[in-house]
Amino acid sequence: MERIEYVRVPKGLENVIVDKSSISVSDPEGELIYRGYEIGDLAENSFFEETAYLILKGKLPNEDELGDFISKLKRERDVPDEIFEIFIKLKGKYLTPIDVQRIGLELLMAYDEKWYSQSYDDLILRAIKIISKLATITANGYRIIFKNKEPIKPRYDLGHSENFLYMLKGEVPDNFSSRIFDITMILYMDHDFNASTFTTRCVGSTLSDIYSAISAGLGALKGPLHGGANEKATEMLLKIKDENDAERYIMETLAKKEKVMGFGHRVYKKLDPRTAVAKKIFAKILEKKPQYLNMYKIMLKFEEVMWRERKIPANVDFWIGPIYYTLDLDIPLYTPLFALSRVVGWAAHYIEQVQENKIIRPKADYVGPRGLNFPYKRNWLSKL
Amino acid sequence: MERIEYVRVPKGLENVIVDKSSISVSDPEGELIYRGYEIGDLAENSFFEETAYLILKGKLPNEDELGDFISKLKRERDVPDEIFEIFIKLKGKYLTPIDVQRIGLELLMAYDEKWYSQSYDDLILRAIKIISKLATITANGYRIIFKNKEPIKPRYDLGHSENFLYMLKGEVPDNFSSRIFDITMILYMDHDFNASTFTTRCVGSTLSDIYSAISAGLGALKGPLHGGANEKATEMLLKIKDENDAERYIMETLAKKEKVMGFGHRVYKKLDPRTAVAKKIFAKILEKKPQYLNMYKIMLKFEEVMWRERKIPANVDFWIGPIYYTLDLDIPLYTPLFALSRVVGWAAHYIEQVQENKIIRPKADYVGPRGLNFPYKRNWLSKL
Repeated sequence: MERIEYVRVPKGLENVIVDKSSISVSDPEGELIYRGYEIGDLAENSFFEETAYLILKGKLPNEDELGDFISKLKRERDVPDEIFEIFIKLKGKYLTPIDVQRIGLELLMAYDEKWYSQSYDDLILRAIKIISKLATITANGYRIIFKNKEPIKPRYDLGHSENFLYMLKGEVPDNFSSRIFDITMILYMDHDFNASTFTTRCVGSTLSDIYSAISAGLGALKGPLHGGANEKATEMLLKIKDENDAERYIMETLAKKEKVMGFGHRVYKKLDPRTAVAKKIFAKILEKKPQYLNMYKIMLKFEEVMWRERKIPANVDFWIGPIYYTLDLDIPLYTPLFALSRVVGWAAHYIEQVQENKIIRPKADYVGPRGLNFPYKRNWLSKL
Repeated sequence: MERIEYVRVPKGLENVIVDKSSISVSDPEGELIYRGYEIGDLAENSFFEETAYLILKGKLPNEDELGDFISKLKRERDVPDEIFEIFIKLKGKYLTPIDVQRIGLELLMAYDEKWYSQSYDDLILRAIKIISKLATITANGYRIIFKNKEPIKPRYDLGHSENFLYMLKGEVPDNFSSRIFDITMILYMDHDFNASTFTTRCVGSTLSDIYSAISAGLGALKGPLHGGANEKATEMLLKIKDENDAERYIMETLAKKEKVMGFGHRVYKKLDPRTAVAKKIFAKILEKKPQYLNMYKIMLKFEEVMWRERKIPANVDFWIGPIYYTLDLDIPLYTPLFALSRVVGWAAHYIEQVQENKIIRPKADYVGPRGLNFPYKRNWLSKL
């Protein structure tokens, strides 16, 4: 038998290139590209549906294609009432909103006759279903389970982001808020082989279905080292009184060798290009809502001190959490909102994975014992 | 800025060693070790609860430790009735039993006040909860949703495997059946960084909770290139009339360049050591149930032809599916039964991952376009 050549790579697969992809690329120097377009350009000029089409299909839609895509998304906004009836039974328990997204997604599968299909066209249709219905699940799951409110039917005259905020709050948002929210949805939409996307691809690589794969992505995003960071960073910031307090907090946290939430990124070592956009948004918010000036100053102080002490830049979660806060969105929703956008990337990566698949199955360096003799001789097999 | 050294590895992480582990090791020459003990030794001499303790805690229990572990597992057999009420609402939809396991697991989280805890003792307790309750969820979820039957309360005078079969069938199994079932549970319990285990570790690496991580493992196991193989292989075998028909089927399938289910494995190229045990079990079954002799001959023919034509050995799923068939277990349960055992490995790997963690976040080789200019100038940010 031929000798197997094993390759050892750094823990956490840091800087390990594991496959090809044509969806997005992040560069350590501070660039993020979706399908050829730079993130700042998309944030400034595109909107949720258009960028979602780009990420899913690999090119910008023409007018007809975009119109068709938007109608399909709208047609998929409805969610069976039975799912909301199940949600009623989940009130007052130990679930978080992202768990509700996951349970909701799996319940949606129960209504999809072709959940298992892996043909390209069927997968694009499943992606549209999931992207659209997950927004309805998220808004109404939150209303029912955490706010003790009635679910709100989607409206079909509103865009994806607007309609989501409408279902969540019960009133149509002003243009300023829905535009800002829509831009954050573009910022969060994809990010090459981040942890939740890679998890989604791992599940896809067994040729399991798209619902199972995205459900796994949700579970990974929930972690505080990943999507959970936007909630943790905002909670931290709300405890800080002013710039001096920020300086004190950071120095104490670093002295204890603890992590300052919202700082550090596996790829970006100088600047997260999404942070640059988010900071511009925050500056615009201050023009309309000066009451957040103190929060803004505290955040700039965090950036200054973290760079001075550790040369670590703020990541996108550090800025987007507070943006959601100024939009009067509840903190436990911040990671689920991230998911509402990243679900587009997960779907695109699932499709890319299964189109040219090989099961993702690494090896471990076994460091446990060998050659132990089992002490009891029960001989089940011989005695069968 | 210093230059980053990227490492490129083969697709699917084939033969790529990504981390240390002391839980289990599979060797291409045909050996599988759990915590130092060889799989054949454990299958012949151990039983579910004892091997589960070994895998979770790293060493065999003494008498007191085993007694304590078994009582804790028993105490966790109950599942809230509310979960079964939700299951009633899932009748007649497009769910498979493994989806029900996953939804059930996530609903269990809703009743666990300390679902998020990552202290070692809390995690061992969560592992015990999940291992034990998942059996109740699986048996009763299947009864309620797919058989239109009432759930059956667990019994506390039976072992884990026996009690599971009791809840599933409504009667206490004979010793022969429950012993065979228990041995298969040992065979399936862990297998180093297989796809579902690696997926579980990916989710754990974001410091997401153990329920989310195991839920993701279930999603990966569902895939036909992974746990789904035992169902697919059995379905295939049931369509074969005799040995000649087997020869014809294989030659036709290979000529079409399609996969013969139940053959091939990322690690084992000559012999899957679990298959050796499973074949011995099948031979014992024939002594009691000669009606399966034709199936046995067909299976040996498959092995012979696949080795002759492609030098590919049967994997464990090829033999365990038919074993479950002789035990009169329904085919759609075979992958969920695999999960009932592998959940022990997933829990152990989750614990190992979070104890010495680094987020699993690889890179992609970006092969898409760059430098495209977005064609529409909407200037949202400037106009905010």
